[in-house]
Amino acid sequence: MTVELTEAEQLRHDLMAEKHAQAKSLLREQDIDCWLTFSREGSDCLLPYVMGGEYLVGTAALMLFAEGPSVAVVADYDVGQVDGIFDHVLPYSLDWREPFHDTLRECNPATIGINHSIANEGVDGITHGMYLKLLDALEPLGYANRLVSSEAVSGRVRAIKSTGEIELIRRACEITQRIFDDLTGMLRPGLTEAQIAEIIRERMQTYEVGPSWEASYCPTVSSSRSRRGHTPPGAVALEPGDGLAVDFGVIREGYASDLMWSWYFRKPGETAPPAEMAHAFEAVRDGIDLAASILKPGIRGVEVDSPARALLQERGYVFTHGLGHQVGRTAHDGGMMLGPNNARYGDRSSGIVEAGMVFTLEPVVTWVGLEDNVLVTDTGCEFLNTPQREIIMI
Amino acid sequence: MTVELTEAEQLRHDLMAEKHAQAKSLLREQDIDCWLTFSREGSDCLLPYVMGGEYLVGTAALMLFAEGPSVAVVADYDVGQVDGIFDHVLPYSLDWREPFHDTLRECNPATIGINHSIANEGVDGITHGMYLKLLDALEPLGYANRLVSSEAVSGRVRAIKSTGEIELIRRACEITQRIFDDLTGMLRPGLTEAQIAEIIRERMQTYEVGPSWEASYCPTVSSSRSRRGHTPPGAVALEPGDGLAVDFGVIREGYASDLMWSWYFRKPGETAPPAEMAHAFEAVRDGIDLAASILKPGIRGVEVDSPARALLQERGYVFTHGLGHQVGRTAHDGGMMLGPNNARYGDRSSGIVEAGMVFTLEPVVTWVGLEDNVLVTDTGCEFLNTPQREIIMI
Repeated sequence: MTVELTEAEQLRHDLMAEKHAQAKSLLREQDIDCWLTFSREGSDCLLPYVMGGEYLVGTAALMLFAEGPSVAVVADYDVGQVDGIFDHVLPYSLDWREPFHDTLRECNPATIGINHSIANEGVDGITHGMYLKLLDALEPLGYANRLVSSEAVSGRVRAIKSTGEIELIRRACEITQRIFDDLTGMLRPGLTEAQIAEIIRERMQTYEVGPSWEASYCPTVSSSRSRRGHTPPGAVALEPGDGLAVDFGVIREGYASDLMWSWYFRKPGETAPPAEMAHAFEAVRDGIDLAASILKPGIRGVEVDSPARALLQERGYVFTHGLGHQVGRTAHDGGMMLGPNNARYGDRSSGIVEAGMVFTLEPVVTWVGLEDNVLVTDTGCEFLNTPQREIIMI
Repeated sequence: MTVELTEAEQLRHDLMAEKHAQAKSLLREQDIDCWLTFSREGSDCLLPYVMGGEYLVGTAALMLFAEGPSVAVVADYDVGQVDGIFDHVLPYSLDWREPFHDTLRECNPATIGINHSIANEGVDGITHGMYLKLLDALEPLGYANRLVSSEAVSGRVRAIKSTGEIELIRRACEITQRIFDDLTGMLRPGLTEAQIAEIIRERMQTYEVGPSWEASYCPTVSSSRSRRGHTPPGAVALEPGDGLAVDFGVIREGYASDLMWSWYFRKPGETAPPAEMAHAFEAVRDGIDLAASILKPGIRGVEVDSPARALLQERGYVFTHGLGHQVGRTAHDGGMMLGPNNARYGDRSSGIVEAGMVFTLEPVVTWVGLEDNVLVTDTGCEFLNTPQREIIMI
């Protein structure tokens, strides 16, 4: 009998069909015969891209091939997690090696890509113990020397979003902005940073979404005043004359947003923020616009970061962090980024932008925060959220 | 000025003081000079035991020494996570290698334990990419050949609970039982498995706790009837004559419980469950009692599993899974377990029980589920929850 899939399960199956097709095409392009994700008890950050979930309990070998059907060797109690996602599911009750050996012998891949990388933590999934366990298992086959890094495939599977994934990030941005809009209606002088964070948390519950990074600092609520005094986090109450920036994102149906907006609490009679704040905000906004006008496939990360950084410097501001990171299943999705060419970011900033990547643009200066999420298209980029154009007055 | 710690922060600091003292003593005992946890973007499952949190963004080298002060090399933006936890915090803004090299040169450890293990996923924390990155960084010092597995230390730091940790697991058990009690009051014929799961989820919100494993199947609600028919998960409505088992645990203040209780929905006039159910329940309960009477320091996991398995077999039941796993920050805490000596569990079941370990005892047969959490003491073991003695009648 056919069991009907729930909506969430159907979504997972559809996404995985997209990602497996993408992986197969990349395997051929990169001349890697097999992509192996080797996991136990949820180890390996690539699991969501290969099976659409974060956890398999037993030792699992998930294999996608350049040619031929995909194969999942999983413990019998894990079958439900991969059923319908892989062409062949080979359950074991005691010994995973047997079906694993049989599969490899039959397919005889000349190269087996496994998930490790020095530079890109986003595809550095296999633990060192699992690597040693794999070597030990490959030894009787004489295949240990066939191992290569999967990075050229797995890095792109992670970074280059499919149609379904883009739609989900767009929806995460939508909810985030709705929460910002709700917040705007609720802001009033006297609220502390901690109370503002609490309002946002309550909204997340209402919309049934989770925070897109560590809950204890998502949202990050900071007032223009909290930088000046030594106060415990969250204690500053917003007063007329204060600015407010909220850095916040949500996870919805497995995909993240990462946005920042800025507000100003007007003093009696004021119709605009103080010139100094407006100036900082405009610098940030213009920096984002400039970066967005440059961002396109084929350009290096540093080539997007540098002009934006120079523009802000001309306006009198310095920001020390990178201009933007990737967004996907997590707010900080690893791999190449839009950053300066220094010891902290250099390796990652020299990478090449590709169509289908999603980046933040976030040149934060003084207290003023503005952060947008953009999708790289074939010819340039597209905002996935509606960019804030001026400081919101409260 | 001194910033007062929040209650949660104070708890974290106290726990880490306990764990660092334990680690130091184990380092001396095991003759390992330095225990290095090498992480980035939350990689390494040992982070919670070393710094009391799950996430450091930048590349971090957290070092505990058999002799001398502890040192954390972390990115400047991560300092807040380790401040007050380590004796020396060395922040870097660009290059982590410099303070890392300085520390190692000064301490000159003959052996450096890093987190990897083939058998124990609970201490298999370093990714293969990070291992390669570490080798590369140690090369100029000529220290690469000083690396050993930290398992003898890290495995015990994870498995052997401190006073504070035991208290937290006990509290997680308490809340779980309170939720079971609440559920007992709300159960009535006609509720589906999915609706029962929903009641439990609502209770978790009320008590502000999270599920102790993957939310989609924590709780696992199964009726005696759902095994018989091909129905979508959760669809079976409980009717008079049905049994119900709920496998469920919570995370509270970072520590988990993992319990199971059983209920029976009486038919008109019934005062006890059918003989067959009662018989299964008694077998399970007696199996747990037998295991608890045997469990003590020095015994091997398989020596606890075997007699319980034999008792159940005498009563006519077979269970294929292990008798019990460890519990700690996660419901399935890795390492040695109470299991049979077979290809699936053998390595882990041959390990030795030590005082301070916490195990589940869960010999589930047919639909009947019962699962308790026990702490190994110096002379035997102690239940951390109040064990269920008979099937609860609804």
